[in-house]
Amino acid sequence: MSNKKQLKLGTIIHGVGGNIAAWRHPEVLTDASVNFDFYKEQAQKSEKAKFDFIFIADGLHINDKSLPHFLNRFEPLTILSALAAVTSHIGLAGTVSTSYSEPFNIARQFSSVDHISKGRAGWNVVTSPLEKTSLNFSKTIEEHPDHAKRYRIAAEYLEVAKGLWDSWGDDAFIRDKDSGVFFDPEKLHQLNHKGEFFSVQGPLNIGRSKQGRPIIFQAGSSEAGKDLAAREADAVFTGHPTLEEAKKFYHDVKNRAAAFGRNPDEILILPGIEPIVGRTEEEAEQKYQEIANLVSIEQALNYLGRFFEHHDFSQYPLDEPFPELGDLGSNSFKSGTDRIKQEAREQKLTLRQVALQSATPRTPFIGTPEKVADRIQEWFDSKGADGFIIHFNVPSHLSSFIDHVVPILQERNLFRKEYEAETLRGNLGLPYPENRYVKNTIKTR
Amino acid sequence: MSNKKQLKLGTIIHGVGGNIAAWRHPEVLTDASVNFDFYKEQAQKSEKAKFDFIFIADGLHINDKSLPHFLNRFEPLTILSALAAVTSHIGLAGTVSTSYSEPFNIARQFSSVDHISKGRAGWNVVTSPLEKTSLNFSKTIEEHPDHAKRYRIAAEYLEVAKGLWDSWGDDAFIRDKDSGVFFDPEKLHQLNHKGEFFSVQGPLNIGRSKQGRPIIFQAGSSEAGKDLAAREADAVFTGHPTLEEAKKFYHDVKNRAAAFGRNPDEILILPGIEPIVGRTEEEAEQKYQEIANLVSIEQALNYLGRFFEHHDFSQYPLDEPFPELGDLGSNSFKSGTDRIKQEAREQKLTLRQVALQSATPRTPFIGTPEKVADRIQEWFDSKGADGFIIHFNVPSHLSSFIDHVVPILQERNLFRKEYEAETLRGNLGLPYPENRYVKNTIKTR
Ligand SMILES: Cc1cc2nc3c(=O)[nH]c(=O)nc-3n(C[C@H](O)[C@H](O)[C@H](O)COP(=O)(O)O)c2cc1C
Ligand SMILES: Cc1cc2nc3c(=O)[nH]c(=O)nc-3n(C[C@H](O)[C@H](O)[C@H](O)COP(=O)(O)O)c2cc1C
Repeated sequence: MSNKKQLKLGTIIHGVGGNIAAWRHPEVLTDASVNFDFYKEQAQKSEKAKFDFIFIADGLHINDKSLPHFLNRFEPLTILSALAAVTSHIGLAGTVSTSYSEPFNIARQFSSVDHISKGRAGWNVVTSPLEKTSLNFSKTIEEHPDHAKRYRIAAEYLEVAKGLWDSWGDDAFIRDKDSGVFFDPEKLHQLNHKGEFFSVQGPLNIGRSKQGRPIIFQAGSSEAGKDLAAREADAVFTGHPTLEEAKKFYHDVKNRAAAFGRNPDEILILPGIEPIVGRTEEEAEQKYQEIANLVSIEQALNYLGRFFEHHDFSQYPLDEPFPELGDLGSNSFKSGTDRIKQEAREQKLTLRQVALQSATPRTPFIGTPEKVADRIQEWFDSKGADGFIIHFNVPSHLSSFIDHVVPILQERNLFRKEYEAETLRGNLGLPYPENRYVKNTIKTR
Repeated sequence: MSNKKQLKLGTIIHGVGGNIAAWRHPEVLTDASVNFDFYKEQAQKSEKAKFDFIFIADGLHINDKSLPHFLNRFEPLTILSALAAVTSHIGLAGTVSTSYSEPFNIARQFSSVDHISKGRAGWNVVTSPLEKTSLNFSKTIEEHPDHAKRYRIAAEYLEVAKGLWDSWGDDAFIRDKDSGVFFDPEKLHQLNHKGEFFSVQGPLNIGRSKQGRPIIFQAGSSEAGKDLAAREADAVFTGHPTLEEAKKFYHDVKNRAAAFGRNPDEILILPGIEPIVGRTEEEAEQKYQEIANLVSIEQALNYLGRFFEHHDFSQYPLDEPFPELGDLGSNSFKSGTDRIKQEAREQKLTLRQVALQSATPRTPFIGTPEKVADRIQEWFDSKGADGFIIHFNVPSHLSSFIDHVVPILQERNLFRKEYEAETLRGNLGLPYPENRYVKNTIKTR
């Protein structure tokens, strides 16, 4: 085994797809988003390929314009837990928002998945972009908090969760039948958190897990999002149309982490990509077109509209410059809508171009296995990424990637042939987080 | 197959036990409460015995006086979901409180488990007895709501959950690739609930399940608890020291259900029991003593104290009449503390007697297989129970029950030899709940 740093790979499993019309592709199971056998097969396939983790995205508000996958899908914590029971090494990461739940409940559920999976849980922390989400929760939250406030809530929420996960020392449970001592009271800690948004006494009613605590992913690439990641996250889920942007982001977040006193190697930058692999360039292009052709311009406008608080784009001429939208969208998917506006302005794109590109992005990762492997290596070697979160709108595209691209990456010693560890943290190469109370007692690790 | 009504059986899986000291028994795995392999084995064993469901109890507040099992255990929704992946017929029921979470999140998670398990989920609705629970959640709830208010919240919470579960018509998802129609917009329903405690727009982002919606259990036997059950529950989890009390409760709840216009056969009364089976009476008694002897009087006082808001009972003389406590405990485990006070008064019990009986109750279900089967039949035939939720502090007691009592019950045609249905609802013999919006459109069922 070489000591060369290797790249990390995760697969998003997302039922009928992240594309608005991909469910019509002949290969897609139309009930995939609520089909456990499908999720199980995708997870087991990814595990056989030695991927680091599977990933479940999420959202808390739908309407009749939402993507088919969003309408009727599994909830992340429950599907991750079910997948824990039918896998043994692959990590299990999923999105839960910090804007509409209680930290005690979510910290507890993630820890429970972490115990069930014996140390393989990961939490993708998001703040919920859609303003109307509050309508499903308005008992406690009168209106959707604005972008800045959502991130303040998220930071405190994570602080509470991490505190609760340290409620019990690693060796708190003595369980000695003879003496009758079940736990060491010195290693039971009350958090007593009192902050701007939360006040949580603790302790949590579950102990530390095999990997200490769940891995924290963060998704959301605005300034506030990057700061939250740099302070709190083990991994960042991001997305970039070009290597240049990826490098800028990578550099930026690693620097911020260093500024917070962290080792920049201990925060992994993982852009999301959708590789489409063909035996030839033409075959790959054809696979891309098979998906793109399913999307009508009306659907593309509708899809684009969702990022801008379900704005109605059908009111504008299709082949004229992308309309001026002012502040619209900047309280929801801020980093995404800022980029769409900027690209449209800089590249002088029409509304039609923006809408089609947003519904079915043409990415640099379409081509022969060698080309896709080259691109992945290029992004990795030139510090645009520590690895990737890959997603596929058509299930056989995962198989093609595994069968044809992964072996090349392995041959180049860029990706593992066997799991190095039993926990997600171990496979990601991240250090075990010491319990915050250890320094007050005798060090055992 | 006979048409004779049969009894329903569920197993509580609760790690190191519901008894304060049973974890010291030689047979108990001391990490059982966070040992997935243990939960899986118990669930699969119960499924092989054709039990209706497994059951996970829960709580949201601990301190250094809590039962060992409560300190470090799986969270119900996640463990149920994991067990769904490794079982195929048995129901999966668990406790979630309505006092400290959002109905949108919990309705969604239970529905997700219902889809993952293909129609086997059940929710035990409780209101959280312990006052200090609020200290873990005080962002949104300044103080623990009082007993009456908790039940008002629970009723509205369930109303919201049931409404959200009807967001989508049973046949809303058309998924026709040719026409590109994924769902029928006429069968998508916004709840628009606005009540005293919640305001929830909907729709839920998951559709109806194979059994329509999860089975509702209710636990909590005060007047308010019985009313909630009679109005909303499919099954009631209760507990009675004598058949007389069981019959009174049974009659009472069935009458209340009828008064609410329901068919009393469609609400199942399931007392919790702890059967201890031996080849002889002496062996059964010895098995009981093995557990009882592990409990010191200090632990028994401590255990009793928990029901009275962690009241310190060590301040009273042990062998004098049970102390006068006034209202203490009536805002938490009301039905339980009322009964303890009443029994102590009527039977002139000392504190020591009350404490030991409460820590390790001597029940009518201890004895030879025939005796235990007789008692079960007696309670069933004389309308004290429609079935039982059984729990065991020692794992081999489940095996003894399955190997020696279940065959007798089967022989008497009191319990199934094969599952009748694939869903929990089907096995419980309960009717499929029609979607509330069906009457507005064409009936398809
Ligand atoms: C790659 C990526 C993945 C995301 N995944 C989710 C998700 O699964 N669920 C969600 O609610 N938001 C998700 N988001 C949205 C963000 O968390 C965030 O709410 C939104 O983008 C606004 O924050 P920002 O301006 O910092 O990006 C994702 C964002 C990015 C960049
Ligand atoms: C048989 C039974 C089982 C119960 N299980 C739970 C449980 O798992 N978790 C919980 O918080 N409360 C549980 N409870 C407590 C009740 O839900 C309720 O909060 C408390 O007993 C006060 O309500 P009551 O006066 O109506 O009984 C249970 C109660 C009974 C009778």
